[in-house]
Amino acid sequence: MDDWLPSLITTTPAEGYDLAIKLARVTIKKTQPDAAMRDRLRPAYAEDADSLIAVSQVVATHFATVAAANDYWRGTP
Amino acid sequence: MDDWLPSLITTTPAEGYDLAIKLARVTIKKTQPDAAMRDRLRPAYAEDADSLIAVSQVVATHFATVAAANDYWRGTP
Amino acid sequence: MDDWLPSLITTTPAEGYDLAIKLARVTIKKTQPDAAMRDRLRPAYAEDADSLIAVSQVVATHFATVAAANDYWRGTP
Amino acid sequence: MDDWLPSLITTTPAEGYDLAIKLARVTIKKTQPDAAMRDRLRPAYAEDADSLIAVSQVVATHFATVAAANDYWRGTP
Amino acid sequence: MDDWLPSLITTTPAEGYDLAIKLARVTIKKTQPDAAMRDRLRPAYAEDADSLIAVSQVVATHFATVAAANDYWRGTP
Amino acid sequence: MDDWLPSLITTTPAEGYDLAIKLARVTIKKTQPDAAMRDRLRPAYAEDADSLIAVSQVVATHFATVAAANDYWRGTP
Repeated sequence: MDDWLPSLITTTPAEGYDLAIKLARVTIKKTQPDAAMRDRLRPAYAEDADSLIAVSQVVATHFATVAAANDYWRGTP
Repeated sequence: MDDWLPSLITTTPAEGYDLAIKLARVTIKKTQPDAAMRDRLRPAYAEDADSLIAVSQVVATHFATVAAANDYWRGTP
Repeated sequence: MDDWLPSLITTTPAEGYDLAIKLARVTIKKTQPDAAMRDRLRPAYAEDADSLIAVSQVVATHFATVAAANDYWRGTP
Repeated sequence: MDDWLPSLITTTPAEGYDLAIKLARVTIKKTQPDAAMRDRLRPAYAEDADSLIAVSQVVATHFATVAAANDYWRGTP
Repeated sequence: MDDWLPSLITTTPAEGYDLAIKLARVTIKKTQPDAAMRDRLRPAYAEDADSLIAVSQVVATHFATVAAANDYWRGTP
Repeated sequence: MDDWLPSLITTTPAEGYDLAIKLARVTIKKTQPDAAMRDRLRPAYAEDADSLIAVSQVVATHFATVAAANDYWRGTP
């Protein structure tokens, strides 16, 4: 996974948001490397409102970082 | 959904707040793409005090990002 | 509710704190627009220590934003 | 309670930490104004490890704000 | 406890991290001053995975503050 | 463990992310120094969706710090 994160810079805010989602998910892959186990866990959060909100919180934290890295895409028209 | 977030810049703080709510919700849509499932989950958080507080926390985190992007709307009269 | 947040600037830190509380509450109003339902939920958090702490966390996050917007009221005597 | 927060500036980091604790507690007072109720809730968090950790999280968030306001007390010897 | 936090400046990042742990713990001491009670609570979090993660979150928040105070120890070789 | 964190500076964002994971884990080692106990706790979070999300939140907070320390690796090609 060495090359999974070449840069925090993205062209648009929407791409930055997708990067934030990726940043949130990688911790889970690195903490639980067993893909089959992760698949079994997926319904536990994708079908639970509180888990979805918690995922949203992690993404919000990463999005803050990505947005700052991109100077909030202020130069984007 | 490619064009859902053209910019973090808003005219007023209130619009920035609405953008923060949108930013919080999109993670849930992207994590649980099944709209019918999301509709079933809605009462679980809209009628639960702790879930509403958790949603509020996510929005607060995104609002911090949007506010910084807009230099806190200091130029707004 | 269009005009509920004209500015993040406040005269004093105490007013900034009250604004942070308001910012925390508005998400709940926008997520659960039914006022009667919100009234029914109120005891669930106002009489629960962990819910009160969670509300306090949301306010802390918004207060950080409001304080930064006001340059920490450093010019206040 | 109008004059409870005249400034975020403190002389020392330790005083700034105490201010962060105060900032965390005021939300609870404002959300649950009934002092007798708050007294009943106190054992629920002061004798529960997870509640104490959650209080610590709120204080950490406020301490970040107070520390930034004081430029991290870098001029303090 | 007046002199427990003379400064946020540390010589190395590792010392800054230890300071963050200390900052996390002091809230618990100040909220639950009874040392015997704190000792009784210790197994409840030191032997519970979710509590340990929550402690780790508080430390992360304080570490952000300490790291900023030290300009991220950029001058450290 | 004195030399475990010589610097927050990393060559690439991916290395910075790994450092954030390390920063998240060290609190757990320092709070629960018994390695056998930590091994017993591991399934409790590595096989629980909410715990994995919580770990992800801690890493997100540390990643924000590491990214800021590295000026978001803006000079990285």
